[in-house]
Amino acid sequence: MVIEKTYNIIILPQKKRLKAKEGENLFHFLVRQGYPVPSACGGMGTCGKCRVLLPEGARAPTESERVHLTEAELEAGWRLLCIQHIDRALVLEIPEVEESVRAKELLNKVLRIPLDSGVKKAYLELPKPGQEDQRPDTVRFQEELGEGRLTFPLQVLKKAPNLLRKGDFKVTVTWAANHVLDLEPGDTTRAQYGVAIDIGTTTLAGYLLSLNTGVELAVRSQMNPQRSFGDDVISRIKRVHEQGEAGLRELQKAVTSGINMVIKHLCQAARVSPVHIYKATVAGNPTMIHLFTGIDPSNIDHSPFIPVLRDSLILPALELGLDMNPQGQVHILPSISGYVGADITAGILYTRLHQAEGIQLFVDIGTNAEIVLGNKDRLLACSTPAGPAFEGARIKYGMGALPGAVAHVLLNDRDLKLEIIGDGVPKGICGSGLIDLGGELCKVGLINERGNFGRRVDLPISERIHQGEKGQLQFLVSDGSKPIYLTQQDVRELQLAKGAIRSGVEIALRELGVTLNEVEMVYLAGAFGSYVSRESVLRIGMLPEFPLSKIKPAGNTAGQGAKLCLLNRGKWEEIQGLTEQVEYFELSYLKDFSRVFMESMHFPRHPHLE
Amino acid sequence: MVIEKTYNIIILPQKKRLKAKEGENLFHFLVRQGYPVPSACGGMGTCGKCRVLLPEGARAPTESERVHLTEAELEAGWRLLCIQHIDRALVLEIPEVEESVRAKELLNKVLRIPLDSGVKKAYLELPKPGQEDQRPDTVRFQEELGEGRLTFPLQVLKKAPNLLRKGDFKVTVTWAANHVLDLEPGDTTRAQYGVAIDIGTTTLAGYLLSLNTGVELAVRSQMNPQRSFGDDVISRIKRVHEQGEAGLRELQKAVTSGINMVIKHLCQAARVSPVHIYKATVAGNPTMIHLFTGIDPSNIDHSPFIPVLRDSLILPALELGLDMNPQGQVHILPSISGYVGADITAGILYTRLHQAEGIQLFVDIGTNAEIVLGNKDRLLACSTPAGPAFEGARIKYGMGALPGAVAHVLLNDRDLKLEIIGDGVPKGICGSGLIDLGGELCKVGLINERGNFGRRVDLPISERIHQGEKGQLQFLVSDGSKPIYLTQQDVRELQLAKGAIRSGVEIALRELGVTLNEVEMVYLAGAFGSYVSRESVLRIGMLPEFPLSKIKPAGNTAGQGAKLCLLNRGKWEEIQGLTEQVEYFELSYLKDFSRVFMESMHFPRHPHLE
Ligand code: FES
Ligand code: FES
Repeated sequence: MVIEKTYNIIILPQKKRLKAKEGENLFHFLVRQGYPVPSACGGMGTCGKCRVLLPEGARAPTESERVHLTEAELEAGWRLLCIQHIDRALVLEIPEVEESVRAKELLNKVLRIPLDSGVKKAYLELPKPGQEDQRPDTVRFQEELGEGRLTFPLQVLKKAPNLLRKGDFKVTVTWAANHVLDLEPGDTTRAQYGVAIDIGTTTLAGYLLSLNTGVELAVRSQMNPQRSFGDDVISRIKRVHEQGEAGLRELQKAVTSGINMVIKHLCQAARVSPVHIYKATVAGNPTMIHLFTGIDPSNIDHSPFIPVLRDSLILPALELGLDMNPQGQVHILPSISGYVGADITAGILYTRLHQAEGIQLFVDIGTNAEIVLGNKDRLLACSTPAGPAFEGARIKYGMGALPGAVAHVLLNDRDLKLEIIGDGVPKGICGSGLIDLGGELCKVGLINERGNFGRRVDLPISERIHQGEKGQLQFLVSDGSKPIYLTQQDVRELQLAKGAIRSGVEIALRELGVTLNEVEMVYLAGAFGSYVSRESVLRIGMLPEFPLSKIKPAGNTAGQGAKLCLLNRGKWEEIQGLTEQVEYFELSYLKDFSRVFMESMHFPRHPHLE
Repeated sequence: MVIEKTYNIIILPQKKRLKAKEGENLFHFLVRQGYPVPSACGGMGTCGKCRVLLPEGARAPTESERVHLTEAELEAGWRLLCIQHIDRALVLEIPEVEESVRAKELLNKVLRIPLDSGVKKAYLELPKPGQEDQRPDTVRFQEELGEGRLTFPLQVLKKAPNLLRKGDFKVTVTWAANHVLDLEPGDTTRAQYGVAIDIGTTTLAGYLLSLNTGVELAVRSQMNPQRSFGDDVISRIKRVHEQGEAGLRELQKAVTSGINMVIKHLCQAARVSPVHIYKATVAGNPTMIHLFTGIDPSNIDHSPFIPVLRDSLILPALELGLDMNPQGQVHILPSISGYVGADITAGILYTRLHQAEGIQLFVDIGTNAEIVLGNKDRLLACSTPAGPAFEGARIKYGMGALPGAVAHVLLNDRDLKLEIIGDGVPKGICGSGLIDLGGELCKVGLINERGNFGRRVDLPISERIHQGEKGQLQFLVSDGSKPIYLTQQDVRELQLAKGAIRSGVEIALRELGVTLNEVEMVYLAGAFGSYVSRESVLRIGMLPEFPLSKIKPAGNTAGQGAKLCLLNRGKWEEIQGLTEQVEYFELSYLKDFSRVFMESMHFPRHPHLE
């Protein structure tokens, strides 16, 4: 019987007493116990945030402690928590955590799944070669590691001999599934990170996570640099049609450099070195995935809309040009069809539609809106061309969700209230503002069922309806130095956009053979889904008349799904099944699609919310 | 029950009747039946050598037949055999095979093992996408191929969409172990080749084989271009010591370009395109393997002689810069220690020492000589520094085995007979000539046991012993316009070289605890082992006194072993086991090595052959 040695850990000021096993890292121990340990580096000893007071028996300070703590603090017994190991009884005090990132909170905020990224690190003090031990360098590892036969990439083999000898045969080896990823001198076992990436047509989002603790260390989003080649996937595919190979490379380079910028910022924020990122997971729509991997998406944009790729891919970072460990494995999530991509499989994985008992609806609103409906027994998916109105395009005073955009609107008989992003002077209308305007104007009856403006003499607000160019009516949203209008044409664009989504949902319900009431939950995915007013969504009839309580903004489900795959290999396996499990149907091939679409463009006659 | 349709094939003039299954290729059918079908391209339809007369019912000639046959021949019913398929009863006549390469002979000459290279090709006529079939390009393949989930390299994914559509969805896919290697338009299933490569310190040897038939289509050897950086492994490692990374790259580039030249010649000889080479196997000593893969061999040349690599490696051709299919898989054979390399494991695999019942000895003579002794129960290996005397270095009139070299010598009381490579004027002495000279001079007693020249007044041949510089005796080998001598110092060099080998063999026998008589078979590996006179080998005492009948020149066993691994995955698995099975011992660490070595330098007192 092996008897494990334990020590008492007493935490001040509450004098809480814990028992801890010998040898464990104190940081990880406390995080597991639920203590809010402040950290920005996930316990790697670089951020200096995990200060702890050891009133008795603090060991001589390390290099890193000398950097992060003053002489006086050191003398008082302050140390960094994450470099302490449990090798004696300890009394300690963790200071109040204020603004700084709380490891515990992050652990909660993040995904409750067992940590099993597949990446492993081990610190080895290898016996040195000698007359009695002529083992080759690689064999020396394998035998000490005891993980069976390992394969080594050339890159690692090339640096191995010098590194071993310079590091006095004390090295950290990183591997995944019997494949060595890297070799470093000294002990770097705690530096083990991954990134989850969501490549949106408009926005790139990146999340840096510790693969040791599951803690999310940094988040970063920025514009997809491909936007300079066109706003939507169609315009980018068109560029490939026109420019061929060169255009494809250009678009690939743009998105890769954008992602590299995201990674750079993530690493700076968390004080992490990119070579310690060993795994990446990537979600995105099919065109984005094709362009990111440099695969020609040309056949996606015309019937029968054929992508090259659907299944997942695992490639070394080197091959994709990502600035992380060159042997780090980039996992590209699988798709379903030419328009229902890895962003949607990730979203399903996160919202668990594929395991739901009751019927659930998932809607991701974008230039193309993706709709998934069903439960564990059957899932249907379709994609519907909502067009760029929600991004502010083709709207006379339209703009993106940037400072100055009218994001929300409240309107009564005589007045209206605007919510402006950044609180400044209104400069234009963004997607959520457009939907609110539509919803509010329907509510008071200034727009009729067919989407036509009409004055109502009984309403003072009616005076905001003016005659515009060519005699068309328009609604004055803001009359600052630069007045902002919602034009009749804008309302038409809104009708097209919301009609596309509504018709997709209606047809999905019909194809699955379920009624409105049977739908238990409606997830609105994406940043837009979180920002938009659900009331307005219902008022303009973008969705059928679900009770408000069933509609749930789900945030960046693509990013969340990518994180799940990053942290847990079981989830990565699980998402593979979705490509076959989800049945895709092509809306435009349905005989009655245009009829349903036409009907769906109408605004509801009696908005049920009033 | 599936009834297979068969047809009668009648072969003229013997009227031999065979039954053949519908659909089979006629070339492969006849080769399997043992017919000597002439071919230089292995049945790929490119060499035009497989002419066959079909007196009745020849089909309209194809493109390729029009190229290789005259109008009159075509009219008479001559066709190319390898593009006929068995789809009817056939009467045919195969012309006498003269000089041209006989497929059957080659099949026999080559290795009798089941063909199982792991590379597969299939021609697919894929259903085209349409409204009813929106499957992604990659899924389309996988489902038609029915081989389960395939992984695709980026390179193939990048060319897939255009290639499919240009080729009208008729494509040939090549894969190995569920990994797609390539995609080509049309049916190229017959074009499936592999190369076995032996990287010698001095010579590169390459063999081109059809992976469809196992036929060896071409052989090529040439100088290892690394020779301009030094003759032996030590001098090349020294270059890495001196020049570091740059020297390493230079040496890697040299050997890679040499191998590429070999591949180019092989392909030209067999009229094969390099992109149809999907697999390569590589043998070579540890330093050559390190330099080929660009891995620093620096720690091999000093005690404790540690290589980086011992186990096998599989890398895409692209990564190594080999001119074959870029995704083709290069299999680098495993080694045993820093001086007993993949050339030796390949040699063991081929000679089957590891499966032998009786004790066998394997000796590969080179600048370093490798010695393996044992049987299926236990195998010992060591390496011994024979030095460069057998390559002609450090010998006053020494030279390599090139035209003009004295390769064999016969000597009696009064005269001597020389065999010159290329039959011209003798220009120097190569390794086998040196051994013969030593052996013959011992035989007649002009060299004594300690290696000293001595005149014998009773022998007229004795007059060829002259006094050279500094009064040293020397033996006149040839007195043309430029006389050639064997000097006393040359004899010393011979003693060092043969003594090194002899002492290794003696110690191996001792370590294994076996007597001379227990050794059943002695393999002399390598070109030198085939060329050298076994009698002289025994006369100078390079080997203990084995009966001549037990000594067997085994040819390029490294190349043969590499071919086995090329054609059969079972052999590749088998060779992996040798790294652990063979016990390496370091001669120089043995306390009594120098004593044994000193003794081994003596020439036998009473040569037993006389
Ligand atoms: S958590 Fe200890 S230094 Fe960052
Ligand atoms: S074997 Fe038929 S052309 Fe070469």
